[in-house]
Amino acid sequence: MKKLFLVTTCAAACLTTLPAAAQFQKPEDAIKYRQSVFTVMASHFGRVAGMAQGRIPFDAKAAADNAALASSLAPLAFTAFGAGTDKGMPNRATPDIWSKAAAFKGKGDEMVAAMAKLDAAAKTGSLDNIKAAVGGVGGTCKGCHDDFRAEKYSN
Amino acid sequence: MKKLFLVTTCAAACLTTLPAAAQFQKPEDAIKYRQSVFTVMASHFGRVAGMAQGRIPFDAKAAADNAALASSLAPLAFTAFGAGTDKGMPNRATPDIWSKAAAFKGKGDEMVAAMAKLDAAAKTGSLDNIKAAVGGVGGTCKGCHDDFRAEKYSN
Repeated sequence: MKKLFLVTTCAAACLTTLPAAAQFQKPEDAIKYRQSVFTVMASHFGRVAGMAQGRIPFDAKAAADNAALASSLAPLAFTAFGAGTDKGMPNRATPDIWSKAAAFKGKGDEMVAAMAKLDAAAKTGSLDNIKAAVGGVGGTCKGCHDDFRAEKYSN
Repeated sequence: MKKLFLVTTCAAACLTTLPAAAQFQKPEDAIKYRQSVFTVMASHFGRVAGMAQGRIPFDAKAAADNAALASSLAPLAFTAFGAGTDKGMPNRATPDIWSKAAAFKGKGDEMVAAMAKLDAAAKTGSLDNIKAAVGGVGGTCKGCHDDFRAEKYSN
C-alpha cells in the first residue's frame, strides 16, 4: 500500500514539471480539474473521518482503502494553480495563492503530508490511530482554507 | 505499478458494496462526485491520448503515470449512480441508466477494462501499444455517452 502513495506522488511530481499550458488548455480547465480533485479527495477522506467521528461504522479495510485513495489524490490539485488560473469560471481561490505562493505551497505540502500520515495510520487498522491522524488532516484543511479560500465564489 | 490498479480497483469494489446512503448524503453529492471523477479521469486520459495523437510530445514515464492514475479512477464513478441520483443538480445522465441498468453496467465495465489495458500498454513504454489502447478507451467512452449521456444538462 505504501507503493500506491509513492507511485501517485511521483506522478504528481512529474506532472508539476510540465508547463501548465501542456496540461490545461484554458484557465477554466485547470479550475474545474482542481475543484474536481478536491471533491473526490474530500469524499474519500470524509468516509474515514465519518468512522473516526462515529457517524459511519468502523470498517478497517474500508478506512484503509479510502485513506489510500485520498492520499493518492492529495498532491494533484496543486498542479492546477498556474498563473492566470484565478479567473475563468466561478472559484474560491484568493489572490494570496499567487502573491504568497511559498506560503500556499507550504500549506499544500502540510496537507499532503498529513494525508500520508492518515494513510499510514489507517493501514495499522487501529481506530485510535485513525482518529489522531484525521484530526491532523482536518487541521491542515482548515489552515489552508482560512488563508487561501474565499467565502464566496467569484469569476 | 500493477499494484496501484489492484488496490484502487479493490477500493472501488468495496465501496460499491456500501449502501448509497452511507456514501452520499444527498443526490447532489453523488452527482458532484461522479462528475468530478470523470473530470479528473478524463484529464489524465487526455494527456495520454494527446501523446498518442501527436499533440503532446511522447514521454513514456508521464504516459505510464497518467494511464495508471486514469485507470485507478475508472471504476469509482459507477458507485455514484444510485437510485434517486438522476436529479439534484444539473447533470447529463439519461433515464436509461436506471431503466437499462445491466446495459449501463456493461458499458461501464467495458471502459474500466479498456482503461486497464491502456495502463498495461503504457507500462510497456511503446507508443504503438499506447496508440492502440487509447483507441480502445475512446471507443468505450463514446459507446457509453451515445447511449447514456444526454446532449444537454438538466436538473
